[in-house]
Amino acid sequence: MKVGIARERLAGEQRVAATPESVRQLVGLGLEVIVESGAGTAAGHSDASYTEAGAEVASSLDPAAVDVVAHVRALAPGTAARLKPGVVTVGLASPSTDLPTVRALADARVTAFALELVPRISRAQSMDALTSQALVTGYRCVLEAAIRLPRFFPLYMTAAGTVPPAKVLVLGAGVAGLQAIGTAKRLGARVSANDIRPASADEVASMGGTFIRLDVEGEAAGGYARELTADRGALQRELLAPHVADADVLITTAAVPGRRAPLLVTRDMVARMRPGSVVVDMAAESGGNVEGSVPGQDLRVPTADGAGEITVVGLKDAASAMAADASRLYAKNVANFIALLVPGADGTVAPDFSDEVVAGACLTHDGEVRHEPTAEALAAL
Amino acid sequence: MKVGIARERLAGEQRVAATPESVRQLVGLGLEVIVESGAGTAAGHSDASYTEAGAEVASSLDPAAVDVVAHVRALAPGTAARLKPGVVTVGLASPSTDLPTVRALADARVTAFALELVPRISRAQSMDALTSQALVTGYRCVLEAAIRLPRFFPLYMTAAGTVPPAKVLVLGAGVAGLQAIGTAKRLGARVSANDIRPASADEVASMGGTFIRLDVEGEAAGGYARELTADRGALQRELLAPHVADADVLITTAAVPGRRAPLLVTRDMVARMRPGSVVVDMAAESGGNVEGSVPGQDLRVPTADGAGEITVVGLKDAASAMAADASRLYAKNVANFIALLVPGADGTVAPDFSDEVVAGACLTHDGEVRHEPTAEALAAL
Repeated sequence: MKVGIARERLAGEQRVAATPESVRQLVGLGLEVIVESGAGTAAGHSDASYTEAGAEVASSLDPAAVDVVAHVRALAPGTAARLKPGVVTVGLASPSTDLPTVRALADARVTAFALELVPRISRAQSMDALTSQALVTGYRCVLEAAIRLPRFFPLYMTAAGTVPPAKVLVLGAGVAGLQAIGTAKRLGARVSANDIRPASADEVASMGGTFIRLDVEGEAAGGYARELTADRGALQRELLAPHVADADVLITTAAVPGRRAPLLVTRDMVARMRPGSVVVDMAAESGGNVEGSVPGQDLRVPTADGAGEITVVGLKDAASAMAADASRLYAKNVANFIALLVPGADGTVAPDFSDEVVAGACLTHDGEVRHEPTAEALAAL
Repeated sequence: MKVGIARERLAGEQRVAATPESVRQLVGLGLEVIVESGAGTAAGHSDASYTEAGAEVASSLDPAAVDVVAHVRALAPGTAARLKPGVVTVGLASPSTDLPTVRALADARVTAFALELVPRISRAQSMDALTSQALVTGYRCVLEAAIRLPRFFPLYMTAAGTVPPAKVLVLGAGVAGLQAIGTAKRLGARVSANDIRPASADEVASMGGTFIRLDVEGEAAGGYARELTADRGALQRELLAPHVADADVLITTAAVPGRRAPLLVTRDMVARMRPGSVVVDMAAESGGNVEGSVPGQDLRVPTADGAGEITVVGLKDAASAMAADASRLYAKNVANFIALLVPGADGTVAPDFSDEVVAGACLTHDGEVRHEPTAEALAAL
């Protein structure tokens, strides 16, 4: 059967759902792979490198000619509608926000798998694209902060005196947050972190960060953060304020799956930081942890005392900005998931819905929306 | 006597020649300090912070009212011409390139000290602004590379496979080069380096880099690199080519004092790197180590096989981009030098020309250009 790898259509998206390396894996499963010309260019892979790996390169991808479509970003509703019944799609499907696409996939009787829905069990780790991309984002946000900070991250002892290390505060210690802690620490900063899940204290420490304990906690099933009530959210901000004011760099990574990101830092809290400080809001695209942050833009906030400005970076497309390694990991996630759908490794795609990973990741099948919360959200429209 | 700290006039220059901390040191020497309003803003220091430190803040600085002028960049010739005879200036004076300023300083009978000329002896290390600013530049150029590289610097072992570390090649292992090596290593890259001074092999190793030995060497007095003959330069490029082709990141830092930077890397060598690779030319402002590099611009060079592009960054104002810490170190260098000019710590500026540091750093005095190479360059005009 045939797997198609399309060029991503979303502006600014530079990743690709297959690399020459992952093509070899797919070919090894007995699949034919068709790559749309130019699909890998931004990630550093030429058409020739795909051909060498055993793929066919097509000037454009005919949706009617493939059995499996692998993608990075959610397909456009129009693209989804043009797929044949029974076609399998594998990729990030943004089920909580791209509802028209979900509708179109179901209507077209496509079997769509959303990598966001892969269960967080150890057998499925190799298919966990949220984790692999969060790793990239966590690393990247430290670079975005460091390049804007008018100071060093590390301590320097020089003939002209000692430069103290930068103080970095990370809010949210999921995969991205932990990676940010580790990267900032690597670069020599003094790092502290908070997460409302008390279990994260050890993880923060293992990455070299100092855990800040607040008396506001919330942990839900699956190890994800739970949304706080409004009152407790306000308390959290109040308790965080002095830590924010003391930081040279603030990185916020708090997300609650399927919901707007929690507001952790008000503009007033930002304004009490020192001139030249930098805030990176990793959640800017999902509503923002920092009041007023704008995805893809740098905002200048005057300090409360008028002495200078703080830069608030609304992070956008961070994983895409590191397209080569982000694609390397993502393509591997995709290929590992597709391998699960080809149990005989004989080129035949045959999803086994008794497998909890297959069932868990299924968004639409046989004309139905299989993922309950998404089906409810669609019904509520 | 009075020390004036002017707002820097050069576009893009964000550093300042005094910080509140260094103002305290100057005041402790019995000097009065006058800071031009806004001089420290870009470096994170408000007028109020200077006042607190004991300085007077003036809306504009009257050159006729001060005895010492401290600056970052070379003064404009017009500014130099308006100084009173006998006034002392301390700062970077770019003697090899800003000859009209040198002429104006001599004609105005100013006693100008150029921090570039501070002898490289251990007693003068605390005044060595070239070293302190090179430290900033070396750190910074790694960030400039990392933020453009579509790959991680560190090795990652993830559930979706292992990502190998980036390969970073540093050419030139002076202060900036060594700092680049150390910073790239900190961030997790595999770092190799070359310098035509064989003595630098140990220093490279001490920063965590692997020294690449080529049979092309040159070392001159004072530990600086010597210019190679044209033939040996071509041989050097030929020997470097395979190392450049294998690097994900190339950082060039080679400089020969007072001369055009040596051409180490041709466009053809760049074109043989992999798609997505990044080159940072730290010498772009002094002629460039990399063919075609443009200060302040990113150049895209197509790979030889047409598979993608390499980004060539012409580094510009790197120290200024980290104005807070660059100024912290620079201001300390300036204050330490001024302390040498106030031997009694009684507020009286009295340069002692029998001191080799004072004599060595002196560019103009009593209407004469004291620095021989600069005097010769002026005579040759």
